[in-house]
Amino acid sequence: MEEIKNLLTEKKLSDLKEVLLNYNSIDICDLLQELEIEDALIIFRLLVKDEAADVFARLDSDRQEELINSFSDRELSEIVAQLFADDAADLVEEMPSAVVKRILANTNASKRKYINELLKYPEDSAGSMMTVEYITLKVNMSVEEAFERIRKTGANKETIYTLYVLDSSRHLVGVCTVKELLLSEKDVRIKDLMETQIISVETDTDQEEVAKLFAKYDFLALPVVDKENRMVGIITIDDALDVISEEHEEDFELMGGVKPSEDTYFKMSVWQHTRNRVVWLLILMLSAMVTGTIITSYEEAFAHLPILVAFIPMLMDTGGNCGAQSSTMVIRGLATDEIELKDLLKVWFKELRIALLVGLILCIVNGLRIYLQYQDLMLAITISLTLIMTVIIAKSLGCLLPMLAKKLGVDPAIMASPMLTTIVDACSILIFFNIAVAIMHI
Amino acid sequence: MEEIKNLLTEKKLSDLKEVLLNYNSIDICDLLQELEIEDALIIFRLLVKDEAADVFARLDSDRQEELINSFSDRELSEIVAQLFADDAADLVEEMPSAVVKRILANTNASKRKYINELLKYPEDSAGSMMTVEYITLKVNMSVEEAFERIRKTGANKETIYTLYVLDSSRHLVGVCTVKELLLSEKDVRIKDLMETQIISVETDTDQEEVAKLFAKYDFLALPVVDKENRMVGIITIDDALDVISEEHEEDFELMGGVKPSEDTYFKMSVWQHTRNRVVWLLILMLSAMVTGTIITSYEEAFAHLPILVAFIPMLMDTGGNCGAQSSTMVIRGLATDEIELKDLLKVWFKELRIALLVGLILCIVNGLRIYLQYQDLMLAITISLTLIMTVIIAKSLGCLLPMLAKKLGVDPAIMASPMLTTIVDACSILIFFNIAVAIMHI
Repeated sequence: MEEIKNLLTEKKLSDLKEVLLNYNSIDICDLLQELEIEDALIIFRLLVKDEAADVFARLDSDRQEELINSFSDRELSEIVAQLFADDAADLVEEMPSAVVKRILANTNASKRKYINELLKYPEDSAGSMMTVEYITLKVNMSVEEAFERIRKTGANKETIYTLYVLDSSRHLVGVCTVKELLLSEKDVRIKDLMETQIISVETDTDQEEVAKLFAKYDFLALPVVDKENRMVGIITIDDALDVISEEHEEDFELMGGVKPSEDTYFKMSVWQHTRNRVVWLLILMLSAMVTGTIITSYEEAFAHLPILVAFIPMLMDTGGNCGAQSSTMVIRGLATDEIELKDLLKVWFKELRIALLVGLILCIVNGLRIYLQYQDLMLAITISLTLIMTVIIAKSLGCLLPMLAKKLGVDPAIMASPMLTTIVDACSILIFFNIAVAIMHI
Repeated sequence: MEEIKNLLTEKKLSDLKEVLLNYNSIDICDLLQELEIEDALIIFRLLVKDEAADVFARLDSDRQEELINSFSDRELSEIVAQLFADDAADLVEEMPSAVVKRILANTNASKRKYINELLKYPEDSAGSMMTVEYITLKVNMSVEEAFERIRKTGANKETIYTLYVLDSSRHLVGVCTVKELLLSEKDVRIKDLMETQIISVETDTDQEEVAKLFAKYDFLALPVVDKENRMVGIITIDDALDVISEEHEEDFELMGGVKPSEDTYFKMSVWQHTRNRVVWLLILMLSAMVTGTIITSYEEAFAHLPILVAFIPMLMDTGGNCGAQSSTMVIRGLATDEIELKDLLKVWFKELRIALLVGLILCIVNGLRIYLQYQDLMLAITISLTLIMTVIIAKSLGCLLPMLAKKLGVDPAIMASPMLTTIVDACSILIFFNIAVAIMHI
């Protein structure tokens, strides 16, 4: 990369063009992202046409906008013509309206139609992910004719390895792969070769469902059909991979109590970060006051025995962590479909047994420590009893609340640690003081 | 699926065989997992040979073991012969030694050699993920000869779409795709067609690195080479997809304070779940006692002003949640390579500014509430000051600790919420009582 920068400062453009041929388009994309816009433009113009489109599609939207603003109309129309329709649709979605106008003005009619079709599908649906560039075959074709068609139309298709067999009204009737074609005799008919048990998605299928199908079946591409089983597009595995990462990131952020965002850490401003975090914090802060109010009502108890206060952090943290463990496991299980709503009692029963075991171990360790440190058997019993009950409640809520959220149609991850901790806190404090008052007669 | 079960009870085996042809091997696998072993065996024996191998490779290891124990030696040797070498290696790794002996006894010499090779590579390395079934070409072949070779050797290869060009000493010198072959003339030489800028991994590359390469470049397969750039295997995108999910699950569990495990929720026993959770809980419980001890040393302060105790939960929760937010963002950034160790100061500065904004908003809301509720300006100021300092410390530790962990070569996710909460707790309580004592003169 140093080499490229040097050639750039020395303005050795023909050498530069030569050198660029050796680089992968993804690495060139990283480079264009880093450079000043003037230099990026020079490099961009040196790329061969289809590489340029490939690089352009991967740039982030700020850089795309800067480049478009420097392009002549002719350059712009060439780039858009080279883009796959789904990439062009993404571009139109991201750009400000003045730029969109210019893009559409420089796009030919058939591509404009595709772009508009893709844009109409709801966000995060299969329709919005799909591309309309795929190869279709007819049932009566021979293997040889199929190869002829691939050679003729394959150059600008996103994948050529899965071929879709349509009838005269574009209904999807079969799927076959280039591997099967290659391993067959030339005169075999497609209808005798094709797989007719087709797994497809509809345009409004959620992208998460799509990703799950890719993870379950080892597809390279998945056909998208409309309600009448007419083929409208395909989704390729690289797009599914992006969705999987995106969904992971979302769960991860929800678990940390951050409102999910599509932008990366450095791209978001301080103000955006603040906005994505502060709402959750306000909700949780105000809920924590409930626990505070509970404590206030036991003022007498800890005025009489101040040592009780010293156990509040330990009880709160243990409760929070126990709950977080259960909710983590259940949220994961729900996400991977291992756990379903009908398993509620089964999961709860399992968590109860785990809670008993965990609670017992914590009890013994902690009870012993307290007895040895304070020589106060009643105190040791109070804390031990509270601890085991807190663990049981935390683990129960930890598995039940995410399932309740799912039942209500809310993302279960919303019930992850921060939310749960706050609820478990109140319970553990309430149990603590009640047991203390009862056992220690204060 | 009901249909299959009915045919099974009615023992209509030839109908059953017919019906099974219509099902996808992944769905058949799900079915075999559910049925009693006797029924599963009946179904399994009705499958066509290569489908049977495909289904077998996907079964979980308990079911595989049960089946193997019911197989005759001839059946076993047929199945192993049909398995891809990487699947066979996985099988050998999972089975108890008596079963392994039987498997290896029924495997032919060349496959046994492959299995042993794969087993020697460290767990989670590219070597252990790879398969040795791929198609190789020579530089001097023509496109037509290449197709000839694909037709001859392609049937039992895991992917035929990426072809690897080797020289006479098996050095990887180029890569080309079936798409390129199909779109070229028959007499073009491979050496004029192949891509020579090859991205490959070595056998000991970590699987996480491999997954990142797949996510970055849209490969269908990635070549694995040894230290001398000699080709030893390929990794296909479906295996990379599995690794991505696995790594994500691991991070997720670490964040929830659970020791990561490869088994699924229901497959793990209550005792295994307990073991994976209790160690973390013990560590955190004992650390929380530090906070308890700090509280004890301020006994006088809250004996004098018991209302102070009521704010402990709110301060602890807010500190914990703020820290969790920052650590979540930083752990994510580190995992995706957006944040690197050299960005430490940049990240810290960003988090400090976010902390100031967040802290101010929380201060204002909370200060007002306290003033209105208790009519006590000093109390409102004490809580507000503590809050803003807690937020700053929580967000600083939240970004610095994961980076420190990474620097020390530990998984940054270990510094996620549970661990961090415990550390931030102690800080916030210390600040709270110090400010209270100073401002409110108690």
